[in-house]
Amino acid sequence: MTVRYGMVGGGPGAFIGKVHRMAAALDGGYELVAGAFSSDPAKSQVAGLELGLDLSRAYDSYEEMAESENALTEGDRIELVSIVTPNHLHHAVARIFLQKGVHVICDKPLTTTVEDAEDLCDLVDKHSCLFALTHSYTGYPIVKEARERVRGGELGEIRKVVVEYSQGWLSTPLEKEGHKQAEWRTDPDRAGISSALGDIGSHAHNLVRYVTGLEVQRLFADLGTVVDGRKLEDDATVLLELEGGVRGLLSVSQISTGERNNLRLRIYGSSGGLDWSQEDPNRLRLIESDGSERVLHRAAGATSERARAHTRLPGGHPEGLIEAFANIYRNVACSLSSDRTTFPFADDFPTVQDGAHGVYFIHKALESYRLGGWVDASYSPPGV
Amino acid sequence: MTVRYGMVGGGPGAFIGKVHRMAAALDGGYELVAGAFSSDPAKSQVAGLELGLDLSRAYDSYEEMAESENALTEGDRIELVSIVTPNHLHHAVARIFLQKGVHVICDKPLTTTVEDAEDLCDLVDKHSCLFALTHSYTGYPIVKEARERVRGGELGEIRKVVVEYSQGWLSTPLEKEGHKQAEWRTDPDRAGISSALGDIGSHAHNLVRYVTGLEVQRLFADLGTVVDGRKLEDDATVLLELEGGVRGLLSVSQISTGERNNLRLRIYGSSGGLDWSQEDPNRLRLIESDGSERVLHRAAGATSERARAHTRLPGGHPEGLIEAFANIYRNVACSLSSDRTTFPFADDFPTVQDGAHGVYFIHKALESYRLGGWVDASYSPPGV
Amino acid sequence: MTVRYGMVGGGPGAFIGKVHRMAAALDGGYELVAGAFSSDPAKSQVAGLELGLDLSRAYDSYEEMAESENALTEGDRIELVSIVTPNHLHHAVARIFLQKGVHVICDKPLTTTVEDAEDLCDLVDKHSCLFALTHSYTGYPIVKEARERVRGGELGEIRKVVVEYSQGWLSTPLEKEGHKQAEWRTDPDRAGISSALGDIGSHAHNLVRYVTGLEVQRLFADLGTVVDGRKLEDDATVLLELEGGVRGLLSVSQISTGERNNLRLRIYGSSGGLDWSQEDPNRLRLIESDGSERVLHRAAGATSERARAHTRLPGGHPEGLIEAFANIYRNVACSLSSDRTTFPFADDFPTVQDGAHGVYFIHKALESYRLGGWVDASYSPPGV
Amino acid sequence: MTVRYGMVGGGPGAFIGKVHRMAAALDGGYELVAGAFSSDPAKSQVAGLELGLDLSRAYDSYEEMAESENALTEGDRIELVSIVTPNHLHHAVARIFLQKGVHVICDKPLTTTVEDAEDLCDLVDKHSCLFALTHSYTGYPIVKEARERVRGGELGEIRKVVVEYSQGWLSTPLEKEGHKQAEWRTDPDRAGISSALGDIGSHAHNLVRYVTGLEVQRLFADLGTVVDGRKLEDDATVLLELEGGVRGLLSVSQISTGERNNLRLRIYGSSGGLDWSQEDPNRLRLIESDGSERVLHRAAGATSERARAHTRLPGGHPEGLIEAFANIYRNVACSLSSDRTTFPFADDFPTVQDGAHGVYFIHKALESYRLGGWVDASYSPPGV
Repeated sequence: MTVRYGMVGGGPGAFIGKVHRMAAALDGGYELVAGAFSSDPAKSQVAGLELGLDLSRAYDSYEEMAESENALTEGDRIELVSIVTPNHLHHAVARIFLQKGVHVICDKPLTTTVEDAEDLCDLVDKHSCLFALTHSYTGYPIVKEARERVRGGELGEIRKVVVEYSQGWLSTPLEKEGHKQAEWRTDPDRAGISSALGDIGSHAHNLVRYVTGLEVQRLFADLGTVVDGRKLEDDATVLLELEGGVRGLLSVSQISTGERNNLRLRIYGSSGGLDWSQEDPNRLRLIESDGSERVLHRAAGATSERARAHTRLPGGHPEGLIEAFANIYRNVACSLSSDRTTFPFADDFPTVQDGAHGVYFIHKALESYRLGGWVDASYSPPGV
Repeated sequence: MTVRYGMVGGGPGAFIGKVHRMAAALDGGYELVAGAFSSDPAKSQVAGLELGLDLSRAYDSYEEMAESENALTEGDRIELVSIVTPNHLHHAVARIFLQKGVHVICDKPLTTTVEDAEDLCDLVDKHSCLFALTHSYTGYPIVKEARERVRGGELGEIRKVVVEYSQGWLSTPLEKEGHKQAEWRTDPDRAGISSALGDIGSHAHNLVRYVTGLEVQRLFADLGTVVDGRKLEDDATVLLELEGGVRGLLSVSQISTGERNNLRLRIYGSSGGLDWSQEDPNRLRLIESDGSERVLHRAAGATSERARAHTRLPGGHPEGLIEAFANIYRNVACSLSSDRTTFPFADDFPTVQDGAHGVYFIHKALESYRLGGWVDASYSPPGV
Repeated sequence: MTVRYGMVGGGPGAFIGKVHRMAAALDGGYELVAGAFSSDPAKSQVAGLELGLDLSRAYDSYEEMAESENALTEGDRIELVSIVTPNHLHHAVARIFLQKGVHVICDKPLTTTVEDAEDLCDLVDKHSCLFALTHSYTGYPIVKEARERVRGGELGEIRKVVVEYSQGWLSTPLEKEGHKQAEWRTDPDRAGISSALGDIGSHAHNLVRYVTGLEVQRLFADLGTVVDGRKLEDDATVLLELEGGVRGLLSVSQISTGERNNLRLRIYGSSGGLDWSQEDPNRLRLIESDGSERVLHRAAGATSERARAHTRLPGGHPEGLIEAFANIYRNVACSLSSDRTTFPFADDFPTVQDGAHGVYFIHKALESYRLGGWVDASYSPPGV
Repeated sequence: MTVRYGMVGGGPGAFIGKVHRMAAALDGGYELVAGAFSSDPAKSQVAGLELGLDLSRAYDSYEEMAESENALTEGDRIELVSIVTPNHLHHAVARIFLQKGVHVICDKPLTTTVEDAEDLCDLVDKHSCLFALTHSYTGYPIVKEARERVRGGELGEIRKVVVEYSQGWLSTPLEKEGHKQAEWRTDPDRAGISSALGDIGSHAHNLVRYVTGLEVQRLFADLGTVVDGRKLEDDATVLLELEGGVRGLLSVSQISTGERNNLRLRIYGSSGGLDWSQEDPNRLRLIESDGSERVLHRAAGATSERARAHTRLPGGHPEGLIEAFANIYRNVACSLSSDRTTFPFADDFPTVQDGAHGVYFIHKALESYRLGGWVDASYSPPGV
């Protein structure tokens, strides 16, 4: 009843691969059986050893892995692959596995070009695969509570959305000091056309869409490269016009010195507002029109079925990012099992189309910046 | 040794006039002796009576007040006038008193046009008067601590400034329900060309300038009128380029439902950041580059002479906005007395030139919005 | 219409006298006309000069002041005296003025013995004077909101009260380093039989009584003297049994290093709880039985008439301790004027009986500590 | 390389068993292979099925499980058992497995009597087993940071410790409404002689010991049963004298309506203080003697090797209780493997002696309450 999965990327020194593995393990629904953990075959073997794999399934490359796994019997081969490589590889890796009917859980952003993103949309459709993108912040139960309340009309008519994602870790040129994460994220060859927007702007954009259900229609972007010598932006502000003329402000930064991982969403409607901060993920602040506030806590005052279904601990027992991440894995596992019919939120995870929306948004932001003016940004990816 | 002052505006039903009077009274440095409290002579008399004035000095109009006070002996007549009328009257009232050599404390924004603002700059210069603008938030001791630290280089080279001023009180059309404050602030004839930017954007802009010492060089503005039927903007975002290419983001809103008076300033430099919120005015959060924080409290950890000189109570005994406001009055009183030479911060109050900067900024924001692009916004008012 | 008042204590180097003067000045209801500001006549003259008094009314002693003021005509002499001396003088000073029919505003604790406290109760009664004790924290509007809600039954039946007042300023032997405040507060001759309980425990005790209306019936106290060489306790915990068997916990400390002025009250009832912190005085946290919270802000969500009547600024414009203090002065002024009949909360200030309750409580706590067991602490002062 | 473990308790409807399983799964170091999940054999089978066990190892009773597992080969049988039953069974279950050389991870409190606790100490010693008690809150990385700083002298000489654990879930008689957790925790036959102190007081007591290294020497306790009809206390305050005369205050409550899981520890030393709250588990507030504060975040500013070794995510990516819990499991697994020699913190988990300390503390608190006075509470369990 557990899902046999493999991993591409996530070898020694990598960060996000380990998070994926903990998320998969938490609820006991997955078994890691294969991997191409590094482009360096020796490192892939080391990782396989550490992870207790049958070493014949610690592959030298993702191409070999796709081929060899496909040659195994249906009861042995991987059903799903987790892709945790730098951005530029997402498309090629996903493509090869989708073509063999392997489901995918992929790190964000989906791809580095809109064309690649749309290609994956088509492939998912053609091969009837599941495809989940790990916009992990939407996995927090209280974010789901926010979604239910906003979409249920509790704030009245939505008027303004403010989303911010501030980090400070790139306020010095870490990429010149051998910091692996910094290296690839600031390198156009591996990160794609954007650094800050691609890495964290895509999360902010997806969070707005997830909670409000509103798509970006027009945007104006201003990008900045604050640390000398960088080729990609490390700070960006994007003014948004969302569906229905809703005003939006999205700002991201990697050079806000001292900020850790400050993702914050505020939504104002005609009858109230809400405020959520990722570093305080168990609380949701509802702002009443009289200026008083209500603070909901995950599993204490958060009353929607959707929030409760994604909660593991009682109120006052904090959950963290791994649990949010695990909700994506858990829902994918549900969707692949007979629980699909009984668990009403099995499809609550970011899809390949959500990923295409994100890639399109980034491209439009860069276009606006080049033009110095507002651009149309409405979009409909294939295969919805 | 107390300053004899008069007031224009601030009669029955007004709000800010009462705050000025409390600020003046707090330290015992002022005596209210005259006023033209309302354009309705009967109301002016009522106010004079309530305030314990000699009723012959509760005038029917500010013109009469200027004339009659000037006719009194030097030891009797007012030395200073507080102007607490709606915006459109600031210029005319200030002008008439300045011409008679009366010092002025005036509410913000200075005027509704740049021409008027510059005229006041010239008059202040010509008549050697003191002129203070009540950007009261710069009166908080901990804001002064922030200034000392930022200007002293504690954050390193400044890179990014984020200032926000969010309110929700105009999220419904209060101005149609007889709410006086809402009426004049949304009325172009009395508020001028701007509502949100004029009323609260001017505070945000001044706060940035006060703390950082950096002037706006270029800006891009997006204005919105969210509540139907309004003639002026009730929501605005302004992207800033400050001196030295520092990136800035200024956003203001009167329709962020539930927000009370959320003025917040964040500054990020090459070696640290800081964060201050007006609704928590006794604390200053310093963000270290390692992601830890230091929280200074007014009179506990705030070590600059400037902050301490503007503090009335020991640490842990909260001060509020009236005390901040009173710091402006107190410093003006010092400047008018022999304390000028002994108190090193007697000139720490917003000036007529600060006011001109604010008016210019608002006009440039509206110009940018009309043009849909970035505009140059560097400015040097007369008489500095 | 202003109250002519004098002050005993509050000369050069004193702290609380200045706070009283600001509180009196804030609303324009008082005029300081006399004072015996120091036991050193020269200092009293200096203070009188600084405060702009007629120097013939800057007296050498409070006895002289009482006599001389009484000799003035009714329209000239002081109507009220503010007593801001160390504790051991409160009784003698209050006594002499009450005997001449002068109203009193006195700093806390009322006296150093129960006998003296009861003597003042009798004198207030006999001479039909007003007597207010400056338990300033009960002057905060949001504390009044708390009172209305608790007494109105919003929390259900009260079950538990936790009050804490932690400071750290005496964590080193400041009294040996010439610190005046530290000197007299740790000196049995001037502070009385208690330091921590007398100075801040009396506030905590009064706050509980003010908000809940419940009196202490039994108590168990543990006192500690943490800093070597001190004669009075600098840390204390008192277990309370309040009326109706309500459980209470009162803890105070002067040696909690780094704490500024951390007075916090929590009350738990059968259907909800509340939480207030003096260092964040504009907010009141209501805890719902489902674990969610409501945060009220002074003038935003605080809906009781009592809270609104003690508020000067709109929501989001912080008020501080001086304003709370000024509410005591303002209500006393109302009580002395014809406003008494129109302002429904004119009698909302701590009385001489509240003071006697506090003194009795301190004595019982010391008795319990000596005995090492619970003691009965129910009490009814004279003259209620 | 994974540890084969079994579980006693944790069947359908149980709460903490699931938490243990997630904690064990998170890092991939454990494999659940056996269980006696319920005293009802049918329920044990259901649990075994759901958990994917070989059903022959879903036992009808823990006695059968101990016997049958012992009969398996060394490479098959469980190496460790997790005990997640109500308190009254801990001793008997642990005893039987220890006698067969099976390592134990046991929920707290250790036992319901001191005799049983000491018996387990002896057995652990005799059979050379590992025994870990899941005082999970000491698993938080930032609590470990606190320990390093306190024990390293950063606060100076420790003077005062305040620990509070407030909950509100038992503010209504849930135990009469079929709530399983409430039922056994308020039932002397299953919870033992104490409810609030046993369930949460034991956590508070252990947290103080873990961080400070100081043992309780004397105590005074006051217990209350607030909700009618209960046989055990639901609210308690314990005054502590710790080693060296350090003053301590421990308060616990299950009837503080609305409180979720408010465990908070404050420690004051001669040169600073610290403050940690379990509901905000990634932050540690250090209070400086000047009244300013430093806020450390897990993995951002928390610099001790011990804290970093127990951290899974970068700063700003919140970790929660499951991760803290998993640190106990992880360290036990390290202790059982060859990592013992390389990982310097393998023995950082609560031991059977820690458990005995907790049980003794609870018994002494009840004794003090019965006597109405202070009692000696120094203790040294067997086998340290």
